[in-house]
Amino acid sequence: MAPTAPRDLRGGIDLGGTKIEAIVVDATNTVLGSARMPTPTTGGPGDVATAMAGVMQKAAHAASVEVTQVGGIGVGSPGQVDQRAGTVTAARNLPGWTGSFPLAAKLEALLAVPVALNGDVDVATNAELTLGAGQPFDSLLGVFWGTGIGGGVIIDRKLWLGRGVAGEVGHMVIRQDGRLCTCGRRGCVEAYAGRGAMEIRARKLHESGKSTVLFDIMREHGHDRLTSGIWERALEAGDKLAHRLIDRAVRALGAGIASAVNLLDVEAVIIGGGLGVRFGQPYVERIAHEMNPHLFADDRPPRVLLAGLGDLGGALGAALNAPPEGTALGVVTGRDG
Amino acid sequence: MAPTAPRDLRGGIDLGGTKIEAIVVDATNTVLGSARMPTPTTGGPGDVATAMAGVMQKAAHAASVEVTQVGGIGVGSPGQVDQRAGTVTAARNLPGWTGSFPLAAKLEALLAVPVALNGDVDVATNAELTLGAGQPFDSLLGVFWGTGIGGGVIIDRKLWLGRGVAGEVGHMVIRQDGRLCTCGRRGCVEAYAGRGAMEIRARKLHESGKSTVLFDIMREHGHDRLTSGIWERALEAGDKLAHRLIDRAVRALGAGIASAVNLLDVEAVIIGGGLGVRFGQPYVERIAHEMNPHLFADDRPPRVLLAGLGDLGGALGAALNAPPEGTALGVVTGRDG
Repeated sequence: MAPTAPRDLRGGIDLGGTKIEAIVVDATNTVLGSARMPTPTTGGPGDVATAMAGVMQKAAHAASVEVTQVGGIGVGSPGQVDQRAGTVTAARNLPGWTGSFPLAAKLEALLAVPVALNGDVDVATNAELTLGAGQPFDSLLGVFWGTGIGGGVIIDRKLWLGRGVAGEVGHMVIRQDGRLCTCGRRGCVEAYAGRGAMEIRARKLHESGKSTVLFDIMREHGHDRLTSGIWERALEAGDKLAHRLIDRAVRALGAGIASAVNLLDVEAVIIGGGLGVRFGQPYVERIAHEMNPHLFADDRPPRVLLAGLGDLGGALGAALNAPPEGTALGVVTGRDG
Repeated sequence: MAPTAPRDLRGGIDLGGTKIEAIVVDATNTVLGSARMPTPTTGGPGDVATAMAGVMQKAAHAASVEVTQVGGIGVGSPGQVDQRAGTVTAARNLPGWTGSFPLAAKLEALLAVPVALNGDVDVATNAELTLGAGQPFDSLLGVFWGTGIGGGVIIDRKLWLGRGVAGEVGHMVIRQDGRLCTCGRRGCVEAYAGRGAMEIRARKLHESGKSTVLFDIMREHGHDRLTSGIWERALEAGDKLAHRLIDRAVRALGAGIASAVNLLDVEAVIIGGGLGVRFGQPYVERIAHEMNPHLFADDRPPRVLLAGLGDLGGALGAALNAPPEGTALGVVTGRDG
């Protein structure tokens, strides 16, 4: 038990294609406890929800509280998120998540704490604006380079969602009739730069006889997929195939982000996500360099910055959107309280 | 002389790559008189300004007033427009306009009427929002398919200019390492769909032996470049080269506009510009069709509509931004009054 009654605690869960991260924060957004685990690669949405509840409980224990002492939990989820209904539809990078699933209601049932659901990149973009590298700017584009390529648009210091799904910088077309994307379309930025798409490409090239240490490193580390750390180690080892794919990814990101900047003329671009945070400043500079040939106003490019909150941005952003203390169960999602 | 003293008259000049159009409107934005002439293809910015002043005077006479009875004139210009300074820089589709030119001051000197200067697509987008096809929507993308491909972004019923030059949908990249654009970059939408770029391509293919009636029609009509009407006649004549280039243009527009929609998730896309208005509804539908394979939220595409104000949108939008009656000369651009 905590020595004094904890107050104004909020939880945040970042549901990613690779890992689930949960935190407990106080009113000043200080992280009191955190936990993480790999995202299940088999099963379905129910299994993912159970895993999320487990990670949240561990984060609460790390903060020396029971999860029911947390006033509300915010969740950042991939896929098509309906905030009102509390549902997630077609989360392609999660196992068996092709249909719609009532994630908020399920988590509330498991944890008995009110849950607010938002898009993963939306909360991460908001976190960068509010607490991270985006603080000095009125307009910015958040680009989250991970399993997929997510994006968030800030206009006049507000997240712009359009009719609900704005920010899909990963599905801007940089090569008509180009490579097949994991979304089923062709030539998207993500088809070249998403970690998921790069792994598919690496396996295909490897199977066709191209030499690479990527899968050796994967097995050495007991993984069954290519994490950001594995890509980093392969690059450090001078692996030609890894360099070739990452170079192509950086070029795709440069062209896609430059297109977005030509359309929106934002003050800043913030690079986050698993690969973005892992590769850090040198790759932020490489992406900025690859943007230049495509920037319409190339005499004054936007600032291109590394995400200030690192890996924690998603969970912090989710916590920023948590229902306030005293919210009844089911209220956020419009169900009966 | 007009029978009664005219009141609340405003002028609007749309400076295009092909033609200059001027109108005089009253307080209800009713067009009282208009005039147009081809944009000079030789000389420099000063010659273009002189031509603009001449067209404005003709429009005033068509409205049975002297130009000095017009309270203020709004101008929509291509190139990089500095509203405050009243200058236009690097208007690529105009003759000899590589540097910066004080267009507002020059027009005020020629016409003795206060002038406000804005970007051509910005005023045209605003006109569609205020008076045209965009009236029902809170967010939209205006796409102006002409000599170049211009774009305007409306967010929450306001034009979004970013740091000054947002909306460059024509310079979004749809093919990395693709065709050379008139902007000097590679693979832009405009490199495939701009009338200027298409003419360069058509000449090149024709010179290399490809058969086409495009240049025959051009000569028959006494033109020295391929206007929208010439493209239309060549298509009607079943000209294969014209069809091939226009089909490619429509595909490029589809991919570029879909990319923009994936980023912004706007409610509507409005297609205007010389070619857009000339080709009309069938081509609006073709563009919408070509967007579909690239739309991330393809279950609910945005409305794709023809510009409601047709060719007049640019001049009407310019007039909407005219300085109000009683404004002193030089005030709008911050110079001495």
